Amino acid sequence: MDIKEMVLEKAKNAKKASRILAGISTNVKNKALTAMADGLVGAKDELKNENEKDIAYAKDKGLSSALIDRLMLNDKRIEGMASGLREIAVLSDPVGEVTRMLQRPSGLKIGKVRVPLGVIGIIYESRPNVTADAVGLCIKSGNAIILRGGSEAINSNIAISNILIKSAMEAGLPEGCIQLIEITDRQAIMDMIKLDQYIDLIVARGGFELIKVVAENSTVPVAKHSAGVCHTYVDVESDLKMAEDICFNAKVQRPGVCNAMETMLVHKDVAQEFLPSIIKRLKEAGVEIRGCAYTKRIVPDIIEATEEDWYTEYLDLILSVRVVKDIDEAIDHIMTYGSHHSDAIVTKDYERSMRFLNEVDSAAVYVNASTRFTDGNEFGLGAELGISTQKLHSRGPMGLEDLTSQKYIIFGNGQIRQ
Amino acid sequence: MDIKEMVLEKAKNAKKASRILAGISTNVKNKALTAMADGLVGAKDELKNENEKDIAYAKDKGLSSALIDRLMLNDKRIEGMASGLREIAVLSDPVGEVTRMLQRPSGLKIGKVRVPLGVIGIIYESRPNVTADAVGLCIKSGNAIILRGGSEAINSNIAISNILIKSAMEAGLPEGCIQLIEITDRQAIMDMIKLDQYIDLIVARGGFELIKVVAENSTVPVAKHSAGVCHTYVDVESDLKMAEDICFNAKVQRPGVCNAMETMLVHKDVAQEFLPSIIKRLKEAGVEIRGCAYTKRIVPDIIEATEEDWYTEYLDLILSVRVVKDIDEAIDHIMTYGSHHSDAIVTKDYERSMRFLNEVDSAAVYVNASTRFTDGNEFGLGAELGISTQKLHSRGPMGLEDLTSQKYIIFGNGQIRQ
Repeated sequence: MDIKEMVLEKAKNAKKASRILAGISTNVKNKALTAMADGLVGAKDELKNENEKDIAYAKDKGLSSALIDRLMLNDKRIEGMASGLREIAVLSDPVGEVTRMLQRPSGLKIGKVRVPLGVIGIIYESRPNVTADAVGLCIKSGNAIILRGGSEAINSNIAISNILIKSAMEAGLPEGCIQLIEITDRQAIMDMIKLDQYIDLIVARGGFELIKVVAENSTVPVAKHSAGVCHTYVDVESDLKMAEDICFNAKVQRPGVCNAMETMLVHKDVAQEFLPSIIKRLKEAGVEIRGCAYTKRIVPDIIEATEEDWYTEYLDLILSVRVVKDIDEAIDHIMTYGSHHSDAIVTKDYERSMRFLNEVDSAAVYVNASTRFTDGNEFGLGAELGISTQKLHSRGPMGLEDLTSQKYIIFGNGQIRQ
Repeated sequence: MDIKEMVLEKAKNAKKASRILAGISTNVKNKALTAMADGLVGAKDELKNENEKDIAYAKDKGLSSALIDRLMLNDKRIEGMASGLREIAVLSDPVGEVTRMLQRPSGLKIGKVRVPLGVIGIIYESRPNVTADAVGLCIKSGNAIILRGGSEAINSNIAISNILIKSAMEAGLPEGCIQLIEITDRQAIMDMIKLDQYIDLIVARGGFELIKVVAENSTVPVAKHSAGVCHTYVDVESDLKMAEDICFNAKVQRPGVCNAMETMLVHKDVAQEFLPSIIKRLKEAGVEIRGCAYTKRIVPDIIEATEEDWYTEYLDLILSVRVVKDIDEAIDHIMTYGSHHSDAIVTKDYERSMRFLNEVDSAAVYVNASTRFTDGNEFGLGAELGISTQKLHSRGPMGLEDLTSQKYIIFGNGQIRQ
């Protein structure tokens, strides 16, 4: 069977399964999620063995330490996947929720009810724990799922999805509701994104190139989880100790993920006081600094940033730093070079905090906190299927509600239109 | 200037205007809407004169009476456009609405706020009143709009949009926030749907071919307003008088619009009693009946329906009729041939009413009412920018809220991620 036929068959089976899954009770779905969690914890050693193959291959290929960190499965992360599934089981089921119901002058009662989208295809790279999060969220929201992970995590993904599928079938979910495309050839993606007859949403998580190819070629609606070129702007009136802690955390706590800070913007009037101390602390933590000319004048022992740096999502211990003359220049910089993911201001000033919130057009805009919080769990949605950096349908972390559609239901007693 | 450059320049101007418009107060937007309404009413004669050119051209081309009805502007319809704009002025402004705000264990307050999408491009056919509805909804929701109406209504659309733009500018809206693409060459559409850098949403309203071309080629997210192949299913236990009134209304009251019924499904056990009377009444109203073999046995003097009829949106005084053996066959028919727009059941049975609501996967599902109610005004949304027949972002009539995105706003006091 060729790739195209294989992908088509999986999509058809998923569509069939989705019709059954839409009617499965919350109890059965929760039982399946718990069984999946138990399954993962019970198979720790097997999962770590399979993951080691991927890690070895990544090291062979000379991938960065940040990328290898994203790829790694250890006991803690396997338990993390399991507890993610258990948390999803505890969340309320969005399916069937009536979000409004109005009585109109005609006497019609018109309501909106949440229904599953149907079949969700997810195209992702690197982190194998995405496999479990994505399956958990799709199943809980009544959607069938087709997974297409990256080649670098293929052994881990096969191992994880086999356990999830087995647990789901035992709990009574319909066959075909969870499927992994095991072919790492990019052709599988090209075939998948044309199947609008069977797939209702493509979630694309990955690098700029992948997202671009998917967005340009897909006939299925796409939720883009694009690069996180996240900024923190340290305002003129700000608690500089707080600013230092927030910036340090946003860069260093986990540099390999999309909500880590990539560019620090500093108001010129606090640059002299703020920069030497934060840069020293960052350097001690192994961060390479790429600063603007002004930054370099204050802290000479750094690399000078190029225009390209401002656009770059390093996903690594590298930070670009720019001194700006005011909040307008900071917002302009973010609007020009940012990726509309997560951006923060540190300030004591009320009006500028409000301006930043209103004018920065990103999925998550922060006052006085680390951008690292942009995450389904931290936002109280349970796990997330991705962080949407587009405006349509969902923005920011995509939780259960974001995986549903709302249809109108109308209760009449003979109304006709005049 | 060639078409591509012209469209690009309009899109760039719209983007620039959208940044200003996002910060314009509700009062100013409402003032503009009222001025637009006054402007249209004050220019009735001019509008009718320009519309006459379109009508004459349509008659020349031999378009159907239903299509000519869609195209026509008379005093009542011009007043309808104006009152639509006034109704939008009265609706609350969705921009700035905080739809939730939670305090998380970290102490972070995390909220979601509605913001404009930015620039909305609308590609539509026929009805010139769409021009006013679309402008009103986009302006009220803080979005710049690029209009691309069909060639058949070009004179009406130019006249309407000139009045709207003039009124908007006088009321203080930013230049470029309302733009019409006057070129009716299809190339303008192809250029427009590639401008994802400047346009945030394309709303596509029109025939199957237009929607298909737009969906397949657009790099901008598309809200499809596709065909309305709407059904009414007359169940075995139903008030046949009510069923007759609902079916008659759904077909005859305004056959040229997307929420009109195209196929009537009748349970076999009531077919003998129901069909002769409703078909007689429909025929007297000028409706051509295309029935299944079973229908033809009961009412011989009709055309026999072909497989293609079940897929067809006539938008005219034509109805296909099929006798089904039960609700399962009715739902199967709707899922196979329907366009997921609006479908109704007429029944006295509680369980079957619930099954129909749950299992029919359409934007609007009715019990005991005419499908003709699927409409922004009737649903209490004010006017509508289109009726989305897809599942992503919005489904059904797209009102003000559907033209916004929600971003996360996070209030901290120094939180860092552990």
